[in-house]
Amino acid sequence: MLKLPGLIDPHVHVREPGATHKEDWDTVTQAALAGGVTTLLAMPNTKPPIFDEATLTLALDAAKTKARCDYAQFVGAGPDNADIVASLAPQAAGLKMYLDSTFGELRLDDMTLWTPHFQAFPKSAPMVMHSESRTMAAAILFSAVYDHPVHIAHVSLKEEILLIKAAKEKGIKVTCEVCPHHLFLSKDDIPAISHGHPGRGEVRPRLATQADVDSLWTNLEVVDCFATDHAPHTLEEKDSDNPPPGFPGLETMLPLLLKAVDDGRLTLDDVVQRLHTNPKRIFNLPEQPDTWVEVDESAMYEIKASEQFTRCGWTPFEGWKGRGKVRKVVLRGKTAFEDGKILVEKGYGRNVRG
Amino acid sequence: MLKLPGLIDPHVHVREPGATHKEDWDTVTQAALAGGVTTLLAMPNTKPPIFDEATLTLALDAAKTKARCDYAQFVGAGPDNADIVASLAPQAAGLKMYLDSTFGELRLDDMTLWTPHFQAFPKSAPMVMHSESRTMAAAILFSAVYDHPVHIAHVSLKEEILLIKAAKEKGIKVTCEVCPHHLFLSKDDIPAISHGHPGRGEVRPRLATQADVDSLWTNLEVVDCFATDHAPHTLEEKDSDNPPPGFPGLETMLPLLLKAVDDGRLTLDDVVQRLHTNPKRIFNLPEQPDTWVEVDESAMYEIKASEQFTRCGWTPFEGWKGRGKVRKVVLRGKTAFEDGKILVEKGYGRNVRG
Repeated sequence: MLKLPGLIDPHVHVREPGATHKEDWDTVTQAALAGGVTTLLAMPNTKPPIFDEATLTLALDAAKTKARCDYAQFVGAGPDNADIVASLAPQAAGLKMYLDSTFGELRLDDMTLWTPHFQAFPKSAPMVMHSESRTMAAAILFSAVYDHPVHIAHVSLKEEILLIKAAKEKGIKVTCEVCPHHLFLSKDDIPAISHGHPGRGEVRPRLATQADVDSLWTNLEVVDCFATDHAPHTLEEKDSDNPPPGFPGLETMLPLLLKAVDDGRLTLDDVVQRLHTNPKRIFNLPEQPDTWVEVDESAMYEIKASEQFTRCGWTPFEGWKGRGKVRKVVLRGKTAFEDGKILVEKGYGRNVRG
Repeated sequence: MLKLPGLIDPHVHVREPGATHKEDWDTVTQAALAGGVTTLLAMPNTKPPIFDEATLTLALDAAKTKARCDYAQFVGAGPDNADIVASLAPQAAGLKMYLDSTFGELRLDDMTLWTPHFQAFPKSAPMVMHSESRTMAAAILFSAVYDHPVHIAHVSLKEEILLIKAAKEKGIKVTCEVCPHHLFLSKDDIPAISHGHPGRGEVRPRLATQADVDSLWTNLEVVDCFATDHAPHTLEEKDSDNPPPGFPGLETMLPLLLKAVDDGRLTLDDVVQRLHTNPKRIFNLPEQPDTWVEVDESAMYEIKASEQFTRCGWTPFEGWKGRGKVRKVVLRGKTAFEDGKILVEKGYGRNVRG
C-alpha cells in the first residue's frame, strides 16, 4: 500500500453558485476525496462570478455547509474591482485573471485593466492567469514589470512551456501547472472522446498537437504543479448544439499519473512534488495534520464514469486503464474516504483561508 | 528660416522590388527629400520579401541605382532564416519581425519561431517588432528574457504606450516609434478620409480611439521616434473591393508636426529628438556631414496629393493645413531639394550600411 500526502488541486470549477445541476460543493468535494485530493482551490467564474465581498460570501457560505474536503475560493479580476479583490486577498485562494476568453464581470480584454490588479494585489498572495500563447507572454511581462509572482494555469503548448522555462532561467517569478488531459490527450484523440458528439472534445485550452504534448513531457522539470481544471458539464450539455468547453478530472488524475509512473514516464516523487509540495508552497497552504492518502499501487482498473462521484456523469477517459486505486483518505485524523465510500459529512471540509 | 538636421524615417515601405506601380526607390526618396528626410530605413515585406542574401542584394541593387537620399534596408525574420539574417546584420538596417499580421516567408505565428532570432541576431543590431497589444507585450518579454533591445514599431494604443512606459521604468531595453497618422487621426476621422471609399481609412495598426490618441500625446516622453510607416498604395487599389491597408506619409509628417509645435502641443526640440537624435542612436546611423533642412516656419499651406512626389497619388491628410514648408535640403554638401524641385540625380543616395 502506497502512502501519499493529501493531494492539492489548485484548479477546480465547483459550479456553485449558479450551475449546481453540473456539480456543487458537495459532489465536487466527494469527487476530490475519491481522487485523493484533500484540498481544492475553486475558480471564480461561477454564476454570479466571485468578484466582490458579497459574491465571495455566497460561495464560502455554500462551501461551509457542503464541502467534505478542505478548500479555498479564488476571487476574479474585473475591470474595476482591483481594490476590492486586493482587500479580500486574505480570505481568498488568490486572484484569478481571465486574460483570454472572458465574459461579464471578469472581462479584462484591454491590458490597461490588468495594471491596477498587478499594482494592488498583495505581493505575497497568489495571482493565477488564464493566458494562452502570447497572452501568457504578456502576463509574464506584467509579472516582471510589476514584480508580482504569477502562476500560469493549464499550460498546453510547446511555445508556452519553452517560454516559461526561459523566463524562469532569467529569474522571473513565474510558476505553472499542467492538466492531465493535456499530458495524456492530443487533438488526435478528439474522435475517440467524441463518440460522434464533437462537443465532448471541447476544452480550453484546446487539446493540442502531439508535438505540444511531447514538449510538456520533455520539460517536466518546468512544470510546478499538476491541476485538473475539473470543469464538469452534463453529457446533455456537451452533446448540445452549443457545447460548453471543459472536462471533469478529479477522479482520473491520480490513476493516470500513477500509470505513467508505472510506465516509467515520471517518478512518484515527481507526482508528489507537483500535487503536494509545490502547490502548498505556491499557494501558501497550511499543513493538514494527520492527513494522508493510501493507494493500492498494484490495482489496475478501467476508468468508468458510472463509478464517479462528480455529478456530470461522464469522463473523456472512459475505458482507459488506470493504475493505483485510492483505498483510503484520512483528512485531519478522520477517515474521509474508504473503499469507494465517502465517510465524512457535508461541512467537514475547512476553508484553509478561514 | 528654421534649420533642422537631416531627418531620419526609420519605417518606410519602398515597394521595390515587386510593386513599383505604387512606389520605387526613385519616387520614395524624392518624397523623402521633399519631406526633409535625408535617411530612410526600408521595410522588408516587398515582393519577394527581403529575407536572405539574394533578396537583400536585389533590394540594395535597386536602391543603389535609384535612391536620391541615404538609406538602409531591413531584413525580415522568417521561420528558418535566423542564422542567415544574423550573418547579414552588418549590411542591414536591422531585423524586422512581423509578429501579428504575417504572410509567406516572414510568417512567425508561433513564439518558438521567435527564439532563434533573439538568440542569433547580434546584440548591437536593431530588432524592430510589428507587434500590437499583447503581442507587443510578448515581444518586450522576449527582449527581457533574451537580453536584446527591441524597437516597437507604430505604437497606437493606450495599453501599448503605458506598458512600454512601465517596462522602460523597469529597465527593459525597449524603444518605440509613433506615426503621425496615429497622432493626428482617430477612427472618428475615417469617414472624412474615405470620401465614400472605406478602403482609404484602412491602415495597420488601425486608427484607434480618441482616448488612445490622447494617451500618445500625454506620454510623449515615452515615444523615442516619429516614423511615417509610409505605405503607398494607389487610389485604385485603396478603392477596390479588397483594399490594402496603408497610408503614404513622407511628405506630410513634418508640416503636421510643425503645426503641432505651432499649436503648442510639442516643442521643436521634441521633434528633432524624435526625427534625428533618437533614431540615429537607436539604429546606429552614421553622421551625415554638411546635411541640413531649411524650413520656412511661417509658411501655412494646404496639403495636396497633387503636389506630392510619392507615386501613390493620394494622402489621408488632403486639405489639411500644414505649417512649415521645406524650402531646401542639403545632403552631404549638395543641395538635394529646393523650392519644390529635386536637384540630385538617381543614385546619389548612399547605403548607410554600405
